[in-house]
Order: sequence, then C-alpha cells, then structure tokens
Amino acid sequence: MANAQSFDYQRLRTFTTKVLEAIGHSHEDALLASDVLLTADLRGIDSHGVARLRGYINLWKANRMNPQPKLKIEHETPSTATIDGDNGLGLVVAPKAMQIAIEKAKNVGCGFVAINNSNHFGIAGYHAMMALPHDMIGFASTNATPTTAPTFAKQKMLGTNPIAVAFPAGKQPDLVADFATTATAVGKLEILQRKGEDAPQGWIQDKDGNPTTDSFGLKKGGMLLPLGSDREHSSHKGFCLGSIVDIMCAVLSGANYGPWVPPFLAFLQPREDLVGKGIGHFVGAMRVDAFRPVDDFKKNLDIWIEAMRKCEPTPGHDHVIIPGDPEREMTAERMKSGIPLLMPVVEDLQDIAKTFNVEL
Amino acid sequence: MANAQSFDYQRLRTFTTKVLEAIGHSHEDALLASDVLLTADLRGIDSHGVARLRGYINLWKANRMNPQPKLKIEHETPSTATIDGDNGLGLVVAPKAMQIAIEKAKNVGCGFVAINNSNHFGIAGYHAMMALPHDMIGFASTNATPTTAPTFAKQKMLGTNPIAVAFPAGKQPDLVADFATTATAVGKLEILQRKGEDAPQGWIQDKDGNPTTDSFGLKKGGMLLPLGSDREHSSHKGFCLGSIVDIMCAVLSGANYGPWVPPFLAFLQPREDLVGKGIGHFVGAMRVDAFRPVDDFKKNLDIWIEAMRKCEPTPGHDHVIIPGDPEREMTAERMKSGIPLLMPVVEDLQDIAKTFNVEL
Repeated sequence: MANAQSFDYQRLRTFTTKVLEAIGHSHEDALLASDVLLTADLRGIDSHGVARLRGYINLWKANRMNPQPKLKIEHETPSTATIDGDNGLGLVVAPKAMQIAIEKAKNVGCGFVAINNSNHFGIAGYHAMMALPHDMIGFASTNATPTTAPTFAKQKMLGTNPIAVAFPAGKQPDLVADFATTATAVGKLEILQRKGEDAPQGWIQDKDGNPTTDSFGLKKGGMLLPLGSDREHSSHKGFCLGSIVDIMCAVLSGANYGPWVPPFLAFLQPREDLVGKGIGHFVGAMRVDAFRPVDDFKKNLDIWIEAMRKCEPTPGHDHVIIPGDPEREMTAERMKSGIPLLMPVVEDLQDIAKTFNVEL
Repeated sequence: MANAQSFDYQRLRTFTTKVLEAIGHSHEDALLASDVLLTADLRGIDSHGVARLRGYINLWKANRMNPQPKLKIEHETPSTATIDGDNGLGLVVAPKAMQIAIEKAKNVGCGFVAINNSNHFGIAGYHAMMALPHDMIGFASTNATPTTAPTFAKQKMLGTNPIAVAFPAGKQPDLVADFATTATAVGKLEILQRKGEDAPQGWIQDKDGNPTTDSFGLKKGGMLLPLGSDREHSSHKGFCLGSIVDIMCAVLSGANYGPWVPPFLAFLQPREDLVGKGIGHFVGAMRVDAFRPVDDFKKNLDIWIEAMRKCEPTPGHDHVIIPGDPEREMTAERMKSGIPLLMPVVEDLQDIAKTFNVEL
C-alpha cells in the first residue's frame, strides 16, 4: 500500500496496551482491549483497529469513558443476564459479557447477555468468535452512533448496527459472518473521498432525503441507507435488521437507542434527554451439542462450505466468498508481513506515543 | 381488486380445516394449520395463504408429507431442543416446536428449538408472534426450496430463508419484522409477469449469472439475488443472512440444507443424495423479564416506535413504515371486508372442494 507503513502485530499490540494502561486501565483490561483492536487490524477491518485509539482517548479526556469499569449484573436467569458496563470501553465490557454468556451456555445450553452503559466495542466478530473454542455458536451485535435513515425517512435514526455470527467448522475454517446492516460502510466512502471519486447510487442520501452520489454526502448532512438501498430493492429489510439490533441491544438492556445513542466522537455532546445508559450490545452463545453431536454438526458444516465453494461463478468472478474467508486470509498475510497503517494514522499514533511517553 | 372474489375469513378457515382433515390430519392439527394459513391471508402475504393449499395437497398425494406426524424430541437441554417433525406440515410442526421454546423460556429465560424433517411452515411471522402473549420476544426462520444464488455464483444454493422477530410493545402495536433474505419475492415477479412488465435491475440474474430485467427470468433458469442485489450494494450481507438461516435451521437440526433442500413443488423430485431429513426450521423465545421488567421494556419500545413514526419523510413519501404496520392494517381491513382471492385461486379451491366433497 502506497502512503502506508507496516507495523509488526506484536509491536502494535504492546503499544496500544501501554497507552490504554496510561489512561487508567488495568494491565489485564488493556491487554484484552488491545486484543480486540488488533484483531480488527489483522482481519483487515482497519476502521475498527488502532486507527480508533485516538477516539477512545478522546472519550476518556472528555470524561465520557471509565477506564476502571466494574461490571454489574442487573438481572439474571439461568440462560440470560443484563449487565451494566459501568461506562467502560466496549472493548473490555463486551468480551467479559460474552464470557458470561458462554458460562450460561455451558450450564443450560445457551446464554444471552444484554449490555447497557457501554461504549464502542470494536468488531462484532471478535466477541462472536469467542464461542468457537468452546464448540459453541457465537452471536454479537451493537448499536452505534446514528448515521442511518429508515426507509422513507430523512433523519439519522439508527447506527450501522452490525451483526456477527460465528460457527465452528471441522476440516474447513470456521464460518464467521460479520456485517453492518447498512448498504455500505463509512470507510468505503472515505476511500472514494481520498480518490476524489463519486459513490454509487444507493449508498447514501443527502440531507433532504434525495439520492446522491457525492462521496462527501455524509459530511454534508446526508445519511447512510439501510441494506437494500431503496424500497424497490427491499431497504425495509435492512431497516428491519437495524431495528432488531437496536431493540435487542438497547431497548432490552436499558441503553440508549435510535437517535439517542451517544456519538462516538468526543467533541459531539450526547443529547440531554437520554432514554438509557450509554450504548448497548447484545451477545450470546449456543452450545452445538445442545442440538446435535458436535462432530455431526461440523461434518455437515464442512459439506455446506464445500458445496458453496464449488459453485460455478458468475462471469468475471473466480469463486463464491465464504463468510470469514477474506478476513482469515488477511490475518495470515498481516501476521507475516505486518499491518499497513496509512501515514495519517501513523502520525497520529506517533503523537499519542509522545503524549503518553510510550514507545511506538 | 379486479379479477378477484372476496371470502369471509371464518368461511375460508372452516374450508381449509375440513380439507386438511380430509387428507388425514386430526381436527386439532387441521385447525392449527388453518390458523397459520389464514393468518398469512389476513396479513396480506397472499403467496403463503390458502393459495398454497393445493401445494400441500400435492405433497400429500406424492407421499411426501405425513398428515399424522408424531413429533420426537431428539436432543434437549433446559434451554434448547432438537425436534424431528416426522415429515409433517411445517404449519403443524413449527407452532408445536415454538410452544416448546416458550415453555423452556418460562423455565430458564430463553428457549430455542431446531427442527428437522419438516415441510413448508407458512409465514415465519406467525410462529414468532406466538411469543407475544407471553411477554416474550419471538424468533422464527426456515430454510426453503433453492431459488437464490450466493454473491458471485450462478447456482441456486439457498432459499428465500426468511427471518421473523416479534417484540411486545405497550400502547403501540407490537413490532413484527418478517422478511425474506433476498432482494425480492417470487410473488412480486409474478405480479409483473401478469402485467407483462419488466423487473428492476438487481432482483434476479439469468441462468448464466448475468443481470436481467426479464420478469420471467426465474422460469427460464434464472435465480433470485440475495438482499443487497450486487456486491457493490453489499449482496454478500444478504448471502450471510441466508447462510446463517440455513445453518441454524438445517446444519444444526439435521435437516437438508443448501441445494439439498427438497423442493416444495411435488412434481419436482428431491435429490437422491440427501444430507439430512426434510426441511429445517429454527424458532425461539426470550422472556423480556429475563432481561428487564416488562413494563420498562414496553415503555421504551413505545418511545422507540413513536420516534420512528415521527421521522421527517423523504420527498414523495408520507411516513416511515414500522415493521408489522402494513400487515396489521391489512388484517383489520380483511377481517371486515373479507379476503380477496384471485380467480385462478378461487377456481383451484372450488376444484379442491369438489375433490374432497367439502363446501367452499
């Protein structure tokens, strides 16, 4: 990648751990959060990796994030729990909540945990994948800063509200689906902005609710569109998905939802009429052997994956992409050759290094 | 509606009950299946209502459906179960499985049931909505006859694989999302076929995997596209959704998945190299009060719904459509004015009436 510098995985991980300690996290929590962050970089989801470190620091500076959260179970049954994240980073809160879900699944078959009073949790896939070593199916989702308009609306009412589901396979690599419920990602718009190119129709609308191809449209008051793009192509289904995530993560947990979700950017103030605590997540785990023997499931998931891989491709394409394949390939590549960071990100990290007197 | 005849809800329900009894169902099961079918008609999902009766009869005639299924729990934990549907109609099997999920949720907070050896289960929304009177959140999904191509593939590997989630609201009507994971529905293509009109780009592709606007494209060997339509508009997310449904419903339950799912049409033979039993469903229920007090949840869901309703609309539109609103309004209308059936459907039902000596 031109205009980028490569960094060793372990070196970056040590760096973010030290920075997170410098802003008050315990060593254990800083390690955990760094693992989540660096997993995003390894998987090629650069928008959710170390490039976000500045954002987390800014939340801390603005007194909008507690680096020493004490998680509290507010409500509990054998298979469920609601957790107050004590305003910690989602990077710390969500994996701990997922651990509770896994323990409940061990006991009674499945476990689901709703989390309020949290902050941005990085990539959903990390938390869902925590289920895999236990031969469980993992689920994770979160609500997020309002960026997205419902079908037929010209207001930002939902976030990108991602969903991740991870399935343990046998000989095949595990299947990990991790996707936002919008037609595109802000990161994809930023790539076009850097190139000075227009966006395709169906990604965003302008502030008046009209279709636009201006890749700077969001910065001019526009909105992301739900998966499906427009009503004719079933954007109401993307709106349904984003709504389901928002309700499970926040209406069920006691967090803020819809337009009340506090913004990730620390210089933007949360609304004064909040309807809950912080942002919300929803995570869960199901034991495969609560349904059928693990070996049977894995054998059949292998057959499923192999059948999809063997599909005849459409003109101009090589093969079907199995959910999780690109991220796994990227991880192997970046563990070997390092994680390429764009120069503005490198300079930002250098500045952080200086501020906290930590070696990059 | 021109070229249609209206029928009273109760009259149609009595008719389908008697027909289902005539092909061997117990009175209780026939009533249950009729309730599922007629709920589709009331909600305006005409493709899944009494118009399907002939299809179910044909499956019975072809010895591909057991009208007296004895459900068997194959596997069980406090919060999960796997059920063999004994090759019964999904219309009978799925509500019974959902009842088990609800009982488990009563005991331990949530309950999820995977079902194999079943058949078409009507609208997913019916089963999800069964949770509502219990102040639970309901989930239902099913795999289906292969009609849909993965992103970059030119083979039918997945069905329309719908997802339904139902949330109990307070003063507002309950929120019910019920949608296929494809860019469009076969029924929408049929409407265009009757009018002799083309389909929009992004609904289907032809047998060679090229985009087509031919509304007869499916009948000529083409395929539905996943929600998102093409890669640029994130059809890989629709493919992820369809895959998650297929894996939960069939790889987890022991049913057939992907291209092995037996076709609904009785004149099409199932493959000989089946990988499981029948088609698969996955249903579940979560007690709201396993997470927070029911009143708090309902109050906040009301606020959520009201905020969405109050959104400023885009040019040319009146308001945001809350998931479940159109179906509820249609139900009120059709309970009053009757269910309009297209003449070919009426003639088909008259023929069925004659065959089984049942009054329409």
